Amino acid sequence: MKIQNLNDLLVDELQDLYSAEKQIIEALPKMAEKATSPDLKQAFKLHLEQTREQRRRLDQIFEGMPGVDRDKKTCKGMEGIIDEGEKLIKDANPETRDAGMISSAQRVEHYEIAGYGTARTYANLLGRPEWARLLQVTLDEEKDADRKLSTIAERINVEARAA
Amino acid sequence: MKIQNLNDLLVDELQDLYSAEKQIIEALPKMAEKATSPDLKQAFKLHLEQTREQRRRLDQIFEGMPGVDRDKKTCKGMEGIIDEGEKLIKDANPETRDAGMISSAQRVEHYEIAGYGTARTYANLLGRPEWARLLQVTLDEEKDADRKLSTIAERINVEARAA
Repeated sequence: MKIQNLNDLLVDELQDLYSAEKQIIEALPKMAEKATSPDLKQAFKLHLEQTREQRRRLDQIFEGMPGVDRDKKTCKGMEGIIDEGEKLIKDANPETRDAGMISSAQRVEHYEIAGYGTARTYANLLGRPEWARLLQVTLDEEKDADRKLSTIAERINVEARAA
Repeated sequence: MKIQNLNDLLVDELQDLYSAEKQIIEALPKMAEKATSPDLKQAFKLHLEQTREQRRRLDQIFEGMPGVDRDKKTCKGMEGIIDEGEKLIKDANPETRDAGMISSAQRVEHYEIAGYGTARTYANLLGRPEWARLLQVTLDEEKDADRKLSTIAERINVEARAA
């Protein structure tokens, strides 16, 4: 049994999120490039900067965990979500691609909302409020990114309907 | 280009969710079996019944879409999330397994919250309020299931800390 206590669970959760962030950092430039709407292009570029900062916050936490390999896991959930998003980009025409990319990006955000919420709760229970605070900052950013995507989607979905 | 308009996007979204629901229906009995806490066991069993009903709601919508193959897609996002959950069940000792399963189940719920939210919005824009209503019922159930898991987690995480 590799996972014996709440600390092990937190490490596992953070390794999963670290892998997820790295995959998102790879995917976002391609999504920004493929986006037609300037708003959406801008939102993906801004979220890339935010995601790099979110990875740095995880780095900060890992620095307080000597002996832990932050690159140990590959987040398969994120792998699947990004694969599907890439397939959708290929299958969709330019009029529907933006709407499809928003749908995919909101799955990404929700994956992270679940993961960061859990990690933040574990950190608090383990008496590491400084880690919980960093994780909460990222959690709030993900929720905000999800809301912004919903706002952009309102207009873009109407355009896709007209296609 | 297979996806040309908002209707194609809705079909793609529903096929993805249909595959997700089928995978969850397979996974939940194993999770209920492995759960130690009676509350969590009961929550997984109840959610299995809900999930079967959610699949029936999707069936109802597909019945209004002649020529659409509801089994066309395999939801890779859900596949990845469930794979990771199964690995966690294997790696965790009994004291931490429940907490880990809740974390995994909340990723499942959030994937569905993103997917059903998008599908509901598409259905409304396409002038299908009867489909939007069915999708909203499921969306509300998923949000409620996520909140219930957070409540159960409060106690279980404390127990995992004591492990």
